[in-house]
Amino acid sequence: MFSKLSWVSQMQFKSDTRGHENILDATLQSGGLNKGPNPKEYVLQGIAGCTAMDVVFYLNKYKEVPLSFDVEIDADLTEKTMPTYFKEVRLKYVLLGDQLSKDKVISAVEKSMTKYCGVSFMISKAAPIKYDVFLNGEKIFSGQAKFE
Amino acid sequence: MFSKLSWVSQMQFKSDTRGHENILDATLQSGGLNKGPNPKEYVLQGIAGCTAMDVVFYLNKYKEVPLSFDVEIDADLTEKTMPTYFKEVRLKYVLLGDQLSKDKVISAVEKSMTKYCGVSFMISKAAPIKYDVFLNGEKIFSGQAKFE
Repeated sequence: MFSKLSWVSQMQFKSDTRGHENILDATLQSGGLNKGPNPKEYVLQGIAGCTAMDVVFYLNKYKEVPLSFDVEIDADLTEKTMPTYFKEVRLKYVLLGDQLSKDKVISAVEKSMTKYCGVSFMISKAAPIKYDVFLNGEKIFSGQAKFE
Repeated sequence: MFSKLSWVSQMQFKSDTRGHENILDATLQSGGLNKGPNPKEYVLQGIAGCTAMDVVFYLNKYKEVPLSFDVEIDADLTEKTMPTYFKEVRLKYVLLGDQLSKDKVISAVEKSMTKYCGVSFMISKAAPIKYDVFLNGEKIFSGQAKFE
């Protein structure tokens, strides 16, 4: 896999990934113009997207179809280290669907967070990744990414 | 820092990061419709963006202004592991500018790859990150991310 970033101005870069263009920028506080997410936010999107696609894959395999499915991700940064990196990453899987099986939803998340999500695997070597699973507004599971 | 991904259909998700929207999707081979970069490509963009912004920061501090600056990143994936993750990440810093100081360019890259790039720091715990630096078409330096 390949991506190319080209400098636009100040802290802003345009990326080209197989023809897909994105903008990366630093926040105003970090000397950028906030024209796009910053690099660490790209990593958060990568973690959330990786596990979200695993969950879709397994729900599909289980013939379970959510009405809606969001993954929220947030991270604290370390404060006194150089470089600054993720101190803790937290994921919230938020699913809606009257017909959804609680056990199948938990199983899909667990498969991702113990076996299939390569991005979480890599980041979990640097920071704990904790998660909560919400089905129809009720918290049905909590865990932490843990790979053998 | 926070991002929210919302399921669109199949493997496609839309992310919202402080109002910046991006699309994530799986490739056709992985059961997606290729409407955007995939999650691991988001991580690659995060690595490249993190170190690219460090380099811009230091060049600016050194009063060095490139005519153009690209960062290319590619990665191999592991083949026989579960999960699949980066086996090796390679960066190419490509700078143009007649007035650019070779030593200052190398210094800026080295600062990023030994001290300041938090994304590279995290990923380097899972995979080696190697890099080459090109100034006006000539390879002037090669190294590997290494943090104390």
